[in-house]
Amino acid sequence: MPPDVLTPERILEATEDVLRRFGPAKATVVDVARALGVSHGSVYRHFPSKVALREAVTGRWLERAHGELAGIASAAGPAPERLAAWLGALFAAKRRKALGDPELFATYRSLFGEHSAVVRSHLADLCGQLRVIIEDGAARGEFAADGPAADPATAAQAVFDATVRFHDPVHAAHWSAAGIEEAHDAVVALVLRGLSAR
Amino acid sequence: MPPDVLTPERILEATEDVLRRFGPAKATVVDVARALGVSHGSVYRHFPSKVALREAVTGRWLERAHGELAGIASAAGPAPERLAAWLGALFAAKRRKALGDPELFATYRSLFGEHSAVVRSHLADLCGQLRVIIEDGAARGEFAADGPAADPATAAQAVFDATVRFHDPVHAAHWSAAGIEEAHDAVVALVLRGLSAR
Repeated sequence: MPPDVLTPERILEATEDVLRRFGPAKATVVDVARALGVSHGSVYRHFPSKVALREAVTGRWLERAHGELAGIASAAGPAPERLAAWLGALFAAKRRKALGDPELFATYRSLFGEHSAVVRSHLADLCGQLRVIIEDGAARGEFAADGPAADPATAAQAVFDATVRFHDPVHAAHWSAAGIEEAHDAVVALVLRGLSAR
Repeated sequence: MPPDVLTPERILEATEDVLRRFGPAKATVVDVARALGVSHGSVYRHFPSKVALREAVTGRWLERAHGELAGIASAAGPAPERLAAWLGALFAAKRRKALGDPELFATYRSLFGEHSAVVRSHLADLCGQLRVIIEDGAARGEFAADGPAADPATAAQAVFDATVRFHDPVHAAHWSAAGIEEAHDAVVALVLRGLSAR
């Protein structure tokens, strides 16, 4: 196998470079092929359409940004602490992306705006992780069985919705504002108390 | 006084019409003057700049949309019910505006994006109303004195932040989605339980 064999991973890396350079409106499969020194037909053999390529690169980016969250959700230990850690890690990862690599973040924001299947599946996956923590907390008696945690799927969505200011890219412009961490902590404290056993 | 005397109110009405017809990017003071059959100098005598006119028309629209909220905040009765009613009224007013008059709503969204003093003052006013309800609830023993309500200003901001999905215009595209009212109710229930006395 030659060292420069055209793998899906190499195509996705080149796509991310091209998106960062040209922006999502202008980047084409031909640009990606040119960056790799191959024909666009070679790219299409791995990704059958521009949409498929964008979905794959978005999925890879989301996985890289949020891979640690699944580990927090399934860890041992008290559910309230895990929930706080999970929400804190989500906000930290989002801020890191938004403030550390603003061009690429803007690109992904625009891809998210296309309401792709991969984004929907990612959001469902995050709510599923919240649900696991909430179910654990209810089973351990840390979250009230007669409170919102009685319906873990609805409670998971409510927690995700209540913290939307700290993870939805539409709010990214506020993530470097003074007091934003205190505001985040106040919402997390309110949500935790809303779930907790008395 | 002739019936068609040029009052600030008539100028603001004409401005709203012009904004709706031309959009915020194109609407000018000259358009407003033309709609009223007066010189632009006559408009400038009441509003010294285009910015001043936009601020005034935004303030009028916000007052009209949210005037009922102050009454709910200062009413008698249990604070938890008032808080739920206030949040429900805010969401209902926002949805009515967004879904009932989308052109004008888009216009005001764009004016909000200019981060004007009138919008900042409006948001501070809304948080102030939440604070009054939370202080009342703490004084009446309905909200826990050792919980988030111990710091009513921070708690008010946390409640406003936790419900942002249901009042910030950046989320308006979701306000007609299936299940949005149930999602709203679940967040309000979580927030109320987070404040409540045990």
